[in-house]
Amino acid sequence: MANLVNYEEASKEVRTVYDDIKHTRGVPDVNNFWKALAVHPPTLKRTWESLKEVMGPGTLDPLTKEMLYLAVSVTNGCGYCIASHGAAARKAGMTQEMWGEVLAIIGMANETNKLAFALQVPIDPMFQGP
Amino acid sequence: MANLVNYEEASKEVRTVYDDIKHTRGVPDVNNFWKALAVHPPTLKRTWESLKEVMGPGTLDPLTKEMLYLAVSVTNGCGYCIASHGAAARKAGMTQEMWGEVLAIIGMANETNKLAFALQVPIDPMFQGP
Amino acid sequence: MANLVNYEEASKEVRTVYDDIKHTRGVPDVNNFWKALAVHPPTLKRTWESLKEVMGPGTLDPLTKEMLYLAVSVTNGCGYCIASHGAAARKAGMTQEMWGEVLAIIGMANETNKLAFALQVPIDPMFQGP
Amino acid sequence: MANLVNYEEASKEVRTVYDDIKHTRGVPDVNNFWKALAVHPPTLKRTWESLKEVMGPGTLDPLTKEMLYLAVSVTNGCGYCIASHGAAARKAGMTQEMWGEVLAIIGMANETNKLAFALQVPIDPMFQGP
Amino acid sequence: MANLVNYEEASKEVRTVYDDIKHTRGVPDVNNFWKALAVHPPTLKRTWESLKEVMGPGTLDPLTKEMLYLAVSVTNGCGYCIASHGAAARKAGMTQEMWGEVLAIIGMANETNKLAFALQVPIDPMFQGP
Amino acid sequence: MANLVNYEEASKEVRTVYDDIKHTRGVPDVNNFWKALAVHPPTLKRTWESLKEVMGPGTLDPLTKEMLYLAVSVTNGCGYCIASHGAAARKAGMTQEMWGEVLAIIGMANETNKLAFALQVPIDPMFQGP
Repeated sequence: MANLVNYEEASKEVRTVYDDIKHTRGVPDVNNFWKALAVHPPTLKRTWESLKEVMGPGTLDPLTKEMLYLAVSVTNGCGYCIASHGAAARKAGMTQEMWGEVLAIIGMANETNKLAFALQVPIDPMFQGP
Repeated sequence: MANLVNYEEASKEVRTVYDDIKHTRGVPDVNNFWKALAVHPPTLKRTWESLKEVMGPGTLDPLTKEMLYLAVSVTNGCGYCIASHGAAARKAGMTQEMWGEVLAIIGMANETNKLAFALQVPIDPMFQGP
Repeated sequence: MANLVNYEEASKEVRTVYDDIKHTRGVPDVNNFWKALAVHPPTLKRTWESLKEVMGPGTLDPLTKEMLYLAVSVTNGCGYCIASHGAAARKAGMTQEMWGEVLAIIGMANETNKLAFALQVPIDPMFQGP
Repeated sequence: MANLVNYEEASKEVRTVYDDIKHTRGVPDVNNFWKALAVHPPTLKRTWESLKEVMGPGTLDPLTKEMLYLAVSVTNGCGYCIASHGAAARKAGMTQEMWGEVLAIIGMANETNKLAFALQVPIDPMFQGP
Repeated sequence: MANLVNYEEASKEVRTVYDDIKHTRGVPDVNNFWKALAVHPPTLKRTWESLKEVMGPGTLDPLTKEMLYLAVSVTNGCGYCIASHGAAARKAGMTQEMWGEVLAIIGMANETNKLAFALQVPIDPMFQGP
Repeated sequence: MANLVNYEEASKEVRTVYDDIKHTRGVPDVNNFWKALAVHPPTLKRTWESLKEVMGPGTLDPLTKEMLYLAVSVTNGCGYCIASHGAAARKAGMTQEMWGEVLAIIGMANETNKLAFALQVPIDPMFQGP
């Protein structure tokens, strides 16, 4: 089980990251992922700054971004990530119906990905190139 | 390398599926995935009907669906699927900028999924339950 | 690309393994997997001896064993392994119809595995225990 | 944790699927996988119908089918699926000895799949073609 | 949940392996992995002998070997393996700081592996060949 | 196939990253991974800066770092990454003998990871906790 570094026992370096997470997300405390990652402050800092950039405002809306994150997390079978990004997706507006469709797509994609492996399908010329 | 069943040599059962794919998608020929899957007509038929249902009209728009499909395919490393669903996503409106963001999310999700495994992070109570 | 060690240039240690593979399988030459693995003779020897034991006579018949090997190889997306164990399965009696069913099962299992991850389904009491 | 939809609270659409599962398998209740999948009735229905077709009578016997399902589930690390399909395989006749051989094959295949990746082994001409 | 075969109830064949593990590692009892694997004595014996050879004295030092084992285990998301090889790595000298760096590398490698898949990057000529 | 952005056609933003890669590594040109990633300049910049930090001077020596990177890349089956980090590892001092041992560990770890999944081995108390 992970060692979780709580705010009170955290170094100044770690607290600065925690503060930025709390401020950016408007939450009273950081979730366990960050408390576990604090075992290595440079990785905590880099991961948070990368995530903030990647999940921040852009061309794709926040809901689409969270659903993409969820699709990867399910494919990798990461229970923690499914729980945390599932919650984030629901918070960003994912309805039960949308979740059902995301679920269906994840299932089908994993099925057809493996069928394409099995058959070693050659790529059609029209799918190649820029 | 896969055996590809072309329309001319296909059985009536296979042709019926090919016809439905061509009609549904408005394409002159089916792509290699289906020609390879025709090695087992019941799997061809079932996979196509499932895919048609899953990727058909619903709550999520076609572009979001294709990007989700792409995110799974990249995570699984399926070259054929990346090529075909990448083309489908671009056709559905995925711009270069959107693709860049999808790319960034896939990368980050794969990174944090493995960090969460490494640290065996316990799920926060707020992420559990319905 | 792998360095392939051919019989002529192989050390005595490597030749002994090659000879056993050729004798056990009744083939005139070993396939590329072994020629590539010869980069590290102890791994070549151990892998061959393990494989010979695992795939040798037992409770399961050779065809079932090869189909199981194929199902894992497809799930991992190993092109070389799909090609070599696909050939071995066909040689052991896998018909086109059987291959179609193996294909369908691999597809469905990969789909439902990911659905079970997505939903974080709790294990039913009846499935637990010895 | 998944929301599980019990029969009493299920919609008519969901009950119809549950009834078919119970009837087809001769069980008094459906297992948790289906109760969790009921979150999205179209996916529940499609997944069950596909599974019924794929795992139903065919060229391969039920035991072989379940062992193949198990091999994929282990490779993907799906705990729920290992528990449920392990139980199904034992019910279909998988002895302790057979399970030991399945185990050994899964282990070896995962090992050699990764060795083949590591060495990027080129496919032998004899393994290619139809 | 696995059936665990304790020393007292183990067959002579299994005890011989257990004794060798205890002797080689200088531990009073074998860990659960071996007790679970004893379900199939030939796989227990072969796996132990292979592991003993692979993790035994060689060109790489024991710490490096354990960190490599850990990197694979995290990538595969094997909770048991992360726990046992994490403990072994710490015993072999992995400090908190080293673990932080291993963590960071595993994260980055998983990210860039998937980015390379996404972009289907062609291999540079300088990276090919012997 | 990836679009590769060469230096001549690159934007100023991309050139700045390319220049830093070339300078840091002492190479005349960047490899294809970066040229493909330039499709999305913010991801190019962030990925390079992260990689530079993670693979830069630290507690672990460069060779160990590259072997860890390689172990993850092989497990994920990323051909490009195996080629590029294999070259980097050899440049950092990985001998043929070391590579053989890395290979053997990757193989064994992938095998035992899946055996631990198959048996759903409970974690020993001594492996838990801080």
